[in-house]
Amino acid sequence: RVDSARLWNSLMEIAEIGATPAGGCNRQALTDEDREGRDLFVRWCRDIGCEIRVDRMGNIFARRPGADNSSPAVITGSHLDTQPTGGKFDGVYGVLAGLEVLRTLEDNGIRTKAPLELVVWTNEEGARFSPAMVGSGVWAGEFSLEYGHSRADKSGITIGEELERIGYLGTEPVLPRAIKASFEAHIEQGPILEKQEQVIGVVTGVQGIRWYDVIFHGMPCHAGPTPMEDRRDPVQALSMLCERLYREVRAYSEDARITCGDLRAAPGSRNTVPEEVVLALDLRHPIPEGLNHLHGSLYRLAEQVQEETGTRVEVREEWYSPPVAFDENCIDAVSRAVQTLGYSNRRMVSGAGHDSVYVSRVAPVSMIFVPCEGGLSHNEAESAEPGHLEAGCNVLLHAMLKAAEL
Amino acid sequence: RVDSARLWNSLMEIAEIGATPAGGCNRQALTDEDREGRDLFVRWCRDIGCEIRVDRMGNIFARRPGADNSSPAVITGSHLDTQPTGGKFDGVYGVLAGLEVLRTLEDNGIRTKAPLELVVWTNEEGARFSPAMVGSGVWAGEFSLEYGHSRADKSGITIGEELERIGYLGTEPVLPRAIKASFEAHIEQGPILEKQEQVIGVVTGVQGIRWYDVIFHGMPCHAGPTPMEDRRDPVQALSMLCERLYREVRAYSEDARITCGDLRAAPGSRNTVPEEVVLALDLRHPIPEGLNHLHGSLYRLAEQVQEETGTRVEVREEWYSPPVAFDENCIDAVSRAVQTLGYSNRRMVSGAGHDSVYVSRVAPVSMIFVPCEGGLSHNEAESAEPGHLEAGCNVLLHAMLKAAEL
Ligand SMILES: NC(=O)NCCC(=O)O
Ligand SMILES: NC(=O)NCCC(=O)O
Repeated sequence: RVDSARLWNSLMEIAEIGATPAGGCNRQALTDEDREGRDLFVRWCRDIGCEIRVDRMGNIFARRPGADNSSPAVITGSHLDTQPTGGKFDGVYGVLAGLEVLRTLEDNGIRTKAPLELVVWTNEEGARFSPAMVGSGVWAGEFSLEYGHSRADKSGITIGEELERIGYLGTEPVLPRAIKASFEAHIEQGPILEKQEQVIGVVTGVQGIRWYDVIFHGMPCHAGPTPMEDRRDPVQALSMLCERLYREVRAYSEDARITCGDLRAAPGSRNTVPEEVVLALDLRHPIPEGLNHLHGSLYRLAEQVQEETGTRVEVREEWYSPPVAFDENCIDAVSRAVQTLGYSNRRMVSGAGHDSVYVSRVAPVSMIFVPCEGGLSHNEAESAEPGHLEAGCNVLLHAMLKAAEL
Repeated sequence: RVDSARLWNSLMEIAEIGATPAGGCNRQALTDEDREGRDLFVRWCRDIGCEIRVDRMGNIFARRPGADNSSPAVITGSHLDTQPTGGKFDGVYGVLAGLEVLRTLEDNGIRTKAPLELVVWTNEEGARFSPAMVGSGVWAGEFSLEYGHSRADKSGITIGEELERIGYLGTEPVLPRAIKASFEAHIEQGPILEKQEQVIGVVTGVQGIRWYDVIFHGMPCHAGPTPMEDRRDPVQALSMLCERLYREVRAYSEDARITCGDLRAAPGSRNTVPEEVVLALDLRHPIPEGLNHLHGSLYRLAEQVQEETGTRVEVREEWYSPPVAFDENCIDAVSRAVQTLGYSNRRMVSGAGHDSVYVSRVAPVSMIFVPCEGGLSHNEAESAEPGHLEAGCNVLLHAMLKAAEL
């Protein structure tokens, strides 16, 4: 069994890096804060004798050798980056739960047969750099390294530049080695476990996600003398599209999700009709047909609004992460660990994307969810109970031990 | 008669300051470019013997003494600041038309009885600092000097700080001296003169303008796992409000105007429901009842959307500039000048706000409009014909001479 207090204290210590006045964390990918978090992680791993490798996407691998180092590794991990107004648990819990597993093995002098690896993936959130999970995505072969390095934030700074600047542009090739199994612990980020009073979510897969930039091309003109019928107003087009799309998505199925996380107008002057409005759109559904349907609605409505308003509505596809089913053996390993430990639990599909999505392309994977307060995440008030975090970590320990063998 | 080529050349020379690649101007209020434009203006005025005063709002007064300097002055002027993606004529034409009048008098050795003053007003556009016409507004007593100095741009820098920084925080009190009459030449910024093939617009007044910040208070949460019914999504509320408000405003009357010039989402991350969206809204109507009606629609719809979505919709009133009727004698002076000169013309109400709105609170005022290409303004492609600019300037010359007497 893991040391609950040590896990909690490490979570609280790293949460000081990028701590926000409202009690959350702003440790966005590849900022100085992210570097500080990475440095602390590396120090903690070296303290228990792990060997550190950093690849050219800045993914960090901390390896604990096994009895048989020719065996494929059992891996775990998650991410240290946060949303701009993020919480203290999203991602970092999965990393420090993995660390707590290694510390517990070290304390008890346990050597597994297979080596263990604890991974920190670069830019999982997709908040500073789109898309999400880009570090694990390049590693798993979904994206090229050039694509990964060239992704830019809103001010045009790229991942490649920032990796170099913060000293995490490693030398290792961005490629998976042979992997026996992978497990990732995470807060649920939704309300199901809490509402149903279950301690552990046995995660069977992840819903599909599609990201778009929707660009409304207006014609700048004066707010006063220009007759309404002479205008091409991108905000009117935006409001018509969004009003209809929200209605259609919500009417389609209660599993469907639509989020408009960012809106930017240029030039952004109150008495000038904008030249351009850019909407950052996120659509999700657990099954491929469902997500296709939402995708179709977007294109149909964009065309409709373009015709009705004469304002060009351009839909740029930014990212597609199809629904994923995890490995049955890994799901079983988690299920059995939960049963051994006696925690209440349910099987569930993840609403959020995770690095495990891309890891699952090259290795057998599953995930372990624990409840978070009010189902709230991507919010500075994100919170979780120490007892639940401990439970998830114990499940991770047992599942990893089972997979790595003694 | 004025020198058309000199007027045009001066317009083209000053347009190089802040010139944009697309052929427009970005010389926003109190930037380094604005300072450069002001410096050039001051130099040109000194070259013809004018005496320069700068008040504590950075308004610049260039005075050409008359035969009777105890007489109230006849004034003209406009602004040198532009929109972020502005044109080469909005504002600067009114300033340089005034300069061309003074140059013409100088060339011809004409001394008026009343002194003449040519004014550059600070931050007319309202693009960098809200509200518009704030320099003339403080001068006319509509706003306090503290209010004027404290207005901040999007990055929090104030007018007071920028006046100091660019060296235009003058020492003169911000107060009108006695004024005989005021005239302002300007491009129409709308399509009426061009469509009706008229050279001069005799401006009888200015429509009413109301500015608002509409703030949609959301609850940040994760784009994936959070059920739609648990969300307070400010973009959904925004799109519902705007969709309805555009419809109502356009249905109300063809004179009504609605513009949403800026939109900002915080924290602005694609996979997080925003905590807050701020909409910069501009409503206009030529008569008070009409503008009141639009104002009422906004409040009613904001409440409606708030009730339907559970998302708080806060309407903050930013500025109100009621409809204004200009002085009958000044309008007549312009009319007679147009007739003398034989230009085609029509009476019209301005769709844009102008410094003359505030000047009219303390002095008899009217304005002279000339056509602009396609009615386009607040656009880098803004354009006007040299012949029209010359005509407007000739009308200004005659109206000022009439008011100032020989
Ligand atoms: N876990 C998490 O918040 N991942 C970000 C990617 C997503 O938007 O689902
Ligand atoms: N003339 C002009 O563009 N003024 C800006 C104020 C307004 O928005 O009408």
